Amino acid sequence: MSKVNDILKNYSHLNPGVRRNLYTMMNTGKLAGTGKMVIYPVDQGFEHGPGRSFSPNPAGYDPLYHAEFAIESGVNAYAAPLGFIQMAASEYPGQIPLILKVNNNDSLVKTPNPLSAITSTVEDALELGCAAIGFTIYPGTAMKNILFEQLQQYIQEAHAAGLAAVVWSYPRGELLSKAGETKVDIVAYAAQIAAQMGADVIKVKPPANEGVELEAAKKSYENVKIDTLKDRVAHVVQSAFDGRRIVIFSGGPAKGKEEVLKEIKEVKAGGGFGAIVGRNIFQRPKDEAMSLLDDIISIYKS
Amino acid sequence: MSKVNDILKNYSHLNPGVRRNLYTMMNTGKLAGTGKMVIYPVDQGFEHGPGRSFSPNPAGYDPLYHAEFAIESGVNAYAAPLGFIQMAASEYPGQIPLILKVNNNDSLVKTPNPLSAITSTVEDALELGCAAIGFTIYPGTAMKNILFEQLQQYIQEAHAAGLAAVVWSYPRGELLSKAGETKVDIVAYAAQIAAQMGADVIKVKPPANEGVELEAAKKSYENVKIDTLKDRVAHVVQSAFDGRRIVIFSGGPAKGKEEVLKEIKEVKAGGGFGAIVGRNIFQRPKDEAMSLLDDIISIYKS
Amino acid sequence: MSKVNDILKNYSHLNPGVRRNLYTMMNTGKLAGTGKMVIYPVDQGFEHGPGRSFSPNPAGYDPLYHAEFAIESGVNAYAAPLGFIQMAASEYPGQIPLILKVNNNDSLVKTPNPLSAITSTVEDALELGCAAIGFTIYPGTAMKNILFEQLQQYIQEAHAAGLAAVVWSYPRGELLSKAGETKVDIVAYAAQIAAQMGADVIKVKPPANEGVELEAAKKSYENVKIDTLKDRVAHVVQSAFDGRRIVIFSGGPAKGKEEVLKEIKEVKAGGGFGAIVGRNIFQRPKDEAMSLLDDIISIYKS
Amino acid sequence: MSKVNDILKNYSHLNPGVRRNLYTMMNTGKLAGTGKMVIYPVDQGFEHGPGRSFSPNPAGYDPLYHAEFAIESGVNAYAAPLGFIQMAASEYPGQIPLILKVNNNDSLVKTPNPLSAITSTVEDALELGCAAIGFTIYPGTAMKNILFEQLQQYIQEAHAAGLAAVVWSYPRGELLSKAGETKVDIVAYAAQIAAQMGADVIKVKPPANEGVELEAAKKSYENVKIDTLKDRVAHVVQSAFDGRRIVIFSGGPAKGKEEVLKEIKEVKAGGGFGAIVGRNIFQRPKDEAMSLLDDIISIYKS
Amino acid sequence: MSKVNDILKNYSHLNPGVRRNLYTMMNTGKLAGTGKMVIYPVDQGFEHGPGRSFSPNPAGYDPLYHAEFAIESGVNAYAAPLGFIQMAASEYPGQIPLILKVNNNDSLVKTPNPLSAITSTVEDALELGCAAIGFTIYPGTAMKNILFEQLQQYIQEAHAAGLAAVVWSYPRGELLSKAGETKVDIVAYAAQIAAQMGADVIKVKPPANEGVELEAAKKSYENVKIDTLKDRVAHVVQSAFDGRRIVIFSGGPAKGKEEVLKEIKEVKAGGGFGAIVGRNIFQRPKDEAMSLLDDIISIYKS
Repeated sequence: MSKVNDILKNYSHLNPGVRRNLYTMMNTGKLAGTGKMVIYPVDQGFEHGPGRSFSPNPAGYDPLYHAEFAIESGVNAYAAPLGFIQMAASEYPGQIPLILKVNNNDSLVKTPNPLSAITSTVEDALELGCAAIGFTIYPGTAMKNILFEQLQQYIQEAHAAGLAAVVWSYPRGELLSKAGETKVDIVAYAAQIAAQMGADVIKVKPPANEGVELEAAKKSYENVKIDTLKDRVAHVVQSAFDGRRIVIFSGGPAKGKEEVLKEIKEVKAGGGFGAIVGRNIFQRPKDEAMSLLDDIISIYKS
Repeated sequence: MSKVNDILKNYSHLNPGVRRNLYTMMNTGKLAGTGKMVIYPVDQGFEHGPGRSFSPNPAGYDPLYHAEFAIESGVNAYAAPLGFIQMAASEYPGQIPLILKVNNNDSLVKTPNPLSAITSTVEDALELGCAAIGFTIYPGTAMKNILFEQLQQYIQEAHAAGLAAVVWSYPRGELLSKAGETKVDIVAYAAQIAAQMGADVIKVKPPANEGVELEAAKKSYENVKIDTLKDRVAHVVQSAFDGRRIVIFSGGPAKGKEEVLKEIKEVKAGGGFGAIVGRNIFQRPKDEAMSLLDDIISIYKS
Repeated sequence: MSKVNDILKNYSHLNPGVRRNLYTMMNTGKLAGTGKMVIYPVDQGFEHGPGRSFSPNPAGYDPLYHAEFAIESGVNAYAAPLGFIQMAASEYPGQIPLILKVNNNDSLVKTPNPLSAITSTVEDALELGCAAIGFTIYPGTAMKNILFEQLQQYIQEAHAAGLAAVVWSYPRGELLSKAGETKVDIVAYAAQIAAQMGADVIKVKPPANEGVELEAAKKSYENVKIDTLKDRVAHVVQSAFDGRRIVIFSGGPAKGKEEVLKEIKEVKAGGGFGAIVGRNIFQRPKDEAMSLLDDIISIYKS
Repeated sequence: MSKVNDILKNYSHLNPGVRRNLYTMMNTGKLAGTGKMVIYPVDQGFEHGPGRSFSPNPAGYDPLYHAEFAIESGVNAYAAPLGFIQMAASEYPGQIPLILKVNNNDSLVKTPNPLSAITSTVEDALELGCAAIGFTIYPGTAMKNILFEQLQQYIQEAHAAGLAAVVWSYPRGELLSKAGETKVDIVAYAAQIAAQMGADVIKVKPPANEGVELEAAKKSYENVKIDTLKDRVAHVVQSAFDGRRIVIFSGGPAKGKEEVLKEIKEVKAGGGFGAIVGRNIFQRPKDEAMSLLDDIISIYKS
Repeated sequence: MSKVNDILKNYSHLNPGVRRNLYTMMNTGKLAGTGKMVIYPVDQGFEHGPGRSFSPNPAGYDPLYHAEFAIESGVNAYAAPLGFIQMAASEYPGQIPLILKVNNNDSLVKTPNPLSAITSTVEDALELGCAAIGFTIYPGTAMKNILFEQLQQYIQEAHAAGLAAVVWSYPRGELLSKAGETKVDIVAYAAQIAAQMGADVIKVKPPANEGVELEAAKKSYENVKIDTLKDRVAHVVQSAFDGRRIVIFSGGPAKGKEEVLKEIKEVKAGGGFGAIVGRNIFQRPKDEAMSLLDDIISIYKS
């Protein structure tokens, strides 16, 4: 418990309502009390379409499958868009902290400068008994002014209502190369922006790629240790207020179990607060998924 | 857990947010999952004054004492006015479900037809991370129209925000005799009114006195079994939608341990969902209080 | 400074804006950093009329006299109704923390159950750069429901805007004897009500009279040490959350210097956080007033 | 103090709340009472990314480092985006005047006509106990209509709430050459626009470059003395209402200590009201930074 | 006075508040009661930059210079953007009718279809005690829909608050030749649009150029007398509701005294209601400026 309280000390600017929900998320599931966090997100149905998302494990078409999976698996929280959360909230109220993903971006429209659509509200989150809202930003998008102002309003409204704000911070935009999106300077920048805007939990992709993307930043990184994924994760965590904000790392595209676990271990070694794994879990058959998730949780528990 | 879910089936008219908070209250502490509930309320400082309330156990002047006591003792929830809840919420966010007592009646003003003062709001409850608001009504007071309209507004607003509504329903008013306040027809009537107004959890006094208060009701009660406290409790629970609302019974004025436990046993035998015990606990030294509370909880657990 | 920070720990439920203003009040003047506080209030012109208030020292008819006096004397803050604060705020912006007295009660109307009139707003306080609002309640008045709801709204609005709330809690009402207003059970009750309603600083009268007012409380006080003023003050401070709220004591009616200082010494010995002295200061010639105030401050400094 | 009051005479159009905050900023730190002002801004994490900003002195990743540095160093105020201010405000409420930077522009998106994103609000500033909001405008950007209208709304709202408005006025836009951004006519124009829009404190870059940028202005400048940096600063100060507005000058890109001090001396000689130095301070190790800042403050103190 | 009342008869559609302010403007200064009006506008600091505006007479950098000049010179009103008006309003409240220029266009951005930025509001004008707002429109700009809607809103809001609306109507836009901007059909059209949109006072440039700009209008003008400036002015006044709206003519770019006076005389002969002269006044040394303005006023007085 003391680890959780230590972390909460960095959130003393928030009202007790928000701190209650952060506490609840950190004290749920198998990682309760460790200060680590594994979140189970299922927004791919909206983001990538149902076929791409659920056909590998057709049980996943059913929203209750995910709600039950989240409860049974011992994760800290379950995140999804409105429709999935409505089902989970109503069938299993109180059994798992819920994060309502309030904006979403589908794959039917593509643009070099993405802007997710608003798909639900803080009022929805309250009515559904959520612990937090989830919001995606794309640092680097030319739509940033609209996007950041939306985020500002959502965080302010969520905090006033005692809800935590989980921010998916995914660099994307016409000036960024595809590889650059997961280079360390860019991921660190994305974490910094989310933290400066008032995010409570920050989700980023692992800074998988070597090198530095921004010309203007290259010189600065000459003396920063960024050779291994572990090093780069450490820099990203440092960039989120020197570890004073909870930074969790997504699992990214589906891949082999060993690969997943290896990455998680490095992320953990670098000081990551946890994982947010969706496709790599729900696209596997339930038993296999449960087992993989358990391995991931075990890494963070150790 | 299945007992909790059975109870929640009677609350399917509420949004998942309220049900989350009912679930949380029923799944906290030593009675978690039993469908029974013991609440620790400390509003006597406001209602009766600090000297009368806390001098028997001076540790109780300190709001953190109660917050810590509630957490350690394994009760389901802690209820108090704004000032005490502010301290509990900020020091121990998330560690115990909180019920913000939003109206309060002090003893410096006395009137045959009482009307509590509004002392805090649903917005306060959200900011402080409460699970519920608590509201006192006095069925029988000539001020009922103001009072019930306030209750209506508070329940509506609390429910919209995902908070549960716990209603203290205490018959009082110029037409009621002092003894009548705890006669079975009156307590049952108070439970019915609270239920009809949308209360989620109803707190009444044990129908301690024999006989029927209202002339017009006497004939009806000829065939109702109301001889023992257990019988009368059963009738009160029946009067709150035939057991479809959580009805809990207060401990009343300070008294001997055996007396307290005897009453609790009868209440439980009559189908009471639990107890809400304040003075009988916090006016005893901590060890003694903890032990008594444990006995009470054990009765409900058995 | 560490004393101030220790006190602020009891206010962690408040946003940083309110804490800034509490900090500023506690770090101004000769008592800066001691955790003690002397406030200079001049609301008697409204409350008792100008002749009764200012004729003993006619310089006091001029609002700038009081503003300058407050600055020069080294008190922590200056409190007054709108008109006086407007002059102080505009002539000496930033030079002394200001407390806008937002309700006031004149002596042209008398009623056994007083209710002060609303005379200014939180918006006024912001425009005038005040550190806090001041609000008077009369625990015991039959008008309590209107009064407490006004207080609730003012505190909520002030806190949202980052302003502190100083509550004058003066028992008064048809059920209280004149002597009873300053008996220890009543003053302690008044402090408790203010604290429960969310007051940050509580101003009460010294519990000057011996004995217990409320019949129902007499038994409880048998074992409470209330023989001396010091004892009684200690009980009042205890009744305001066991010393977790700043309780300051008014000087009361004009009297001799020695009498004033004797009372202040006892209040301090009992754990009072400070004094709020008006008439005993501003009705004396400036030099004499300055000297007396310096003596009072010295007592709190020692 | 009389210097501060002389300056405040030029702000008599503002309500006392704003003047209180200007007074507080001018009476804080080592320059208290001199009418000069050194502000410590740390918005580069957002503007340039965390690596470029903080890797030269990694202590700077931690928001508390900056809060503590600002307090210890004796500057007049600390300016940063929401996330950093939240930490400073909650940990050290009242210990240093805070300026909430309410709009920010990251380096992941580049456009010839920049428009910063809205990242926080006046309501945030009140809750966090800030003395002022900070807002960046880019005179010359084709987005000016949106930008100026945002500024107009922020200034109006901030002033109504008693907060001061500090405006970063940085010429930029497709019609301006890079060199032109710091030519005297352009910097003077930027100062004038900020002043006309109601800014209380105006931050500009030193008019480092010789020559005049705008064709239409060249003739007018034939008779203006703009040979030295000192001359040019004098013209800029003159252009902000003939010295009736506080104009402070940024330190610009990181450079050698001697260079920094030389520039500051010329700025001061030209009548600049002070400096706002970020990178040149926080990118140095703490001791060195503290020493340089002390030198800067000494220049303004002399 | 009867002349003023005759003019006010054409404004009977306005509420008495607006008419009070028109009356006040027409009854101020040396032209009081004549029905003629000379306005002193100083918005060039924003529109052209401070160096171009004030270096010919550096006293003009100081906002108080203009306020004092306006009062001493006996003009009817003083018009400027927010910053200048704040100083004038606060230092000399009530001494001269003020017109708050609520939109402004700087010279750092150039576009063939200009749209001024909103820089202040009707609320500002009320707080500063202004008699009117000033608003610039550019008939002919492709941004007209935004612009006219802004004007509509400002006039509606100003009138509702009892403030008059002075409209600067300056034809400009990609379809107009530079010369065409001051041809009679265009100036007349600009006056008509302003009048139709509800302007109370219309400021246009003198229709200095001969000929007709619009092809479609040429035939219509064959029978209109537009040979001399006097003729053309008469047509412009006629186009503003046949003289039922106050139309005043700007002085245009700086030029020689004789030239200025000659133009003014012709404008007056053509029925112009007055002059609005800025640069030609404030760019001259004070004595010379005062003397020229006196000459102008004398022309309108005769």
